[in-house]
Amino acid sequence: MDGPFEIIARDGGSRARAGVLRTPHGDVPTPAFVPLATKATVRGLVPAEVEEIGYSMVLGNTFHLHQAPGDELIAQAGGLHRFMRWERPIITDSGGFQVFSMGHGNVADEIKGRRPAGRQEGGAIVSIEEEGVTYRSYVDGSERFMGPETSMEIQANLGSDIALVFDECTPFHVDRDYTARSTERSHRWLGRCLDWHEARGPAGQLVYGIVQGGVYEDLRAASADEVAASAADGIAIGGSLGEDKAQMYEVVDWATARLGGPHEHRPRHLLGIGEVDDLVRGVELGIDSFDCVMPTRLGRHGVALVPDPENRWRLDLTTARQRGSREPLMEGCPCPACAIGYERGYLHYMARARELTAMRLLTLHNLAFLARVMTRLREAIIAGELAEAAAALRAGQAP
Amino acid sequence: MDGPFEIIARDGGSRARAGVLRTPHGDVPTPAFVPLATKATVRGLVPAEVEEIGYSMVLGNTFHLHQAPGDELIAQAGGLHRFMRWERPIITDSGGFQVFSMGHGNVADEIKGRRPAGRQEGGAIVSIEEEGVTYRSYVDGSERFMGPETSMEIQANLGSDIALVFDECTPFHVDRDYTARSTERSHRWLGRCLDWHEARGPAGQLVYGIVQGGVYEDLRAASADEVAASAADGIAIGGSLGEDKAQMYEVVDWATARLGGPHEHRPRHLLGIGEVDDLVRGVELGIDSFDCVMPTRLGRHGVALVPDPENRWRLDLTTARQRGSREPLMEGCPCPACAIGYERGYLHYMARARELTAMRLLTLHNLAFLARVMTRLREAIIAGELAEAAAALRAGQAP
Repeated sequence: MDGPFEIIARDGGSRARAGVLRTPHGDVPTPAFVPLATKATVRGLVPAEVEEIGYSMVLGNTFHLHQAPGDELIAQAGGLHRFMRWERPIITDSGGFQVFSMGHGNVADEIKGRRPAGRQEGGAIVSIEEEGVTYRSYVDGSERFMGPETSMEIQANLGSDIALVFDECTPFHVDRDYTARSTERSHRWLGRCLDWHEARGPAGQLVYGIVQGGVYEDLRAASADEVAASAADGIAIGGSLGEDKAQMYEVVDWATARLGGPHEHRPRHLLGIGEVDDLVRGVELGIDSFDCVMPTRLGRHGVALVPDPENRWRLDLTTARQRGSREPLMEGCPCPACAIGYERGYLHYMARARELTAMRLLTLHNLAFLARVMTRLREAIIAGELAEAAAALRAGQAP
Repeated sequence: MDGPFEIIARDGGSRARAGVLRTPHGDVPTPAFVPLATKATVRGLVPAEVEEIGYSMVLGNTFHLHQAPGDELIAQAGGLHRFMRWERPIITDSGGFQVFSMGHGNVADEIKGRRPAGRQEGGAIVSIEEEGVTYRSYVDGSERFMGPETSMEIQANLGSDIALVFDECTPFHVDRDYTARSTERSHRWLGRCLDWHEARGPAGQLVYGIVQGGVYEDLRAASADEVAASAADGIAIGGSLGEDKAQMYEVVDWATARLGGPHEHRPRHLLGIGEVDDLVRGVELGIDSFDCVMPTRLGRHGVALVPDPENRWRLDLTTARQRGSREPLMEGCPCPACAIGYERGYLHYMARARELTAMRLLTLHNLAFLARVMTRLREAIIAGELAEAAAALRAGQAP
């Protein structure tokens, strides 16, 4: 084994692999989904619950934690793990996604191919320069700066197991020229991040570079090569992944095609993707880990994940047809929420009333559902049956 | 034993007693605090958690459940216990509190002695007549009616273990004449509730009458006598309890002074009271059970209950002085939230960010705190040491 990632099985018919990612706070079996703990908590859950439903790693948000309570305060409290009482691995993002959202509109919408909504999360970009980004804080209106070194320093204060390099997260609607220039600058920022980390990063913290290049094959390939040639411990795929699933798969394919051979022992993370069919395809394309707000956000809005590909694996409990339904949320589901035996009619009422209980139960259910999807895929890779498992999941078999 | 309530110990120096309240869904050791499950859930918790922190009974809200999802739907789902998966005792209130809030302003404020805030929860009273109350629904704007029989029918549909009779909940600012006329009408409504229940109520469901009479000693005494003379299984004390704690204790004293002797085997419930010193005094005055929104509502707003009488047992985690605090929420607290080991600085951040996790943790902590207060009082009555326990709790000893 060379580096932190051990491959324990490979699928014969695709780029998929099962492995173990070793971090200072323990091992993560892969392929893995990583729930968001944006503001130092998986919303509504405590650490033991996150672990119990099958997770070894969560993702904390550098930008939000820097704004409040502040990464220095978290460092004084003993680091993010101790602060949030999660003693297992944590990835932190770079903060770039949030900072650039201020300038590009809602990047999350953009990545899905929608036009800018005009609405921003608050704050605003003052300037984007070679040195980094100056923005106005949504907390106190003050002008603040974030560049590669700032991001790495914040992530050092947080003490995450995996830090992501600071990059520009380009949205879908920017043109090739802008994307090319931005990607090149992101590569220079990658170098600065790795330099800072080598000199001052916490011992054991892994650093993932990020492949950019938008929806342009040559830019993606060049970016993948550049990141692969760097000293980064792992490789994330970020930025605009296209306007639909087909294009997203193509973009991921362009990147992972360049990451085999001498680079195959670098773990690969796909940023912001979490729908069941995307997880299946991502694994086939050689992705080892994923993060996405979807399962937790949907849960807070009354939507449960169920084995129903025709409805994108979603059951909207707030619709009138669920009123009074005596059906279980999901027949045979072993999650702690379903174990209580609630009927859809009850969850419909709870979700419509915006009750905390519903948000919590559906968060538990959705995360447990995705954990089982990942376990199923991992076990199938190890058993040499990935094609069958992928087909079954795509056809709507329960994980 | 005569009726559903068995007294197992009496305090020599006060009216306090420890007992067991027997209901169709099991026994409730008293004195007991009863958490609110307003909309078919103790907000953010599941039944096993409510039980684990020490509760045998919760209170569901007749008015809200009638509005949505509808008591008929709940009856079709097998009743409120089955609907919300809580198989232990449930009290339901009568709906009167909410209905009359539309006309009298916010009764909760009024009961605390504050002037009407002008803001109402929605809906409006169209008329209050002998037959009952016509109001406009906050759900769909339609005109609806609630009277004694309606309330009992809804509570029959819900299938609660203890139903409260429909009464007019008079606010603090109404005069003696209005209070007298209202109290007399509430007594007539008591009779109608008991008649309806005798003819059509669910087998085993207990009915509590409600003592009204505002802040007028003769009216309270007369009302206590009237309710005691009825066939009600238990006796609740409701309505305006005065403008401060001293007056509230006096009002409760007037009522329970009339409920001894031949009536002592009727369980007594004090509506809407839950502060630690009020619970202690209420128990001394002979109250067997209490309900209050306070511990759960405070928990959702970042306030923890701690042994600190000078600050009304409250620790506001949202204040700036808790930022970065490394102190535990409450030293030595055995509750499931404190067991995780979070520091105040973390909870400050969570509460300020309005994170679900904070609402849930503080709800658990606050309810567990009050459960221990009640257990302490109960054990002290049985051990013949109530005076010592009451003094210790009042002085800020941890329960």
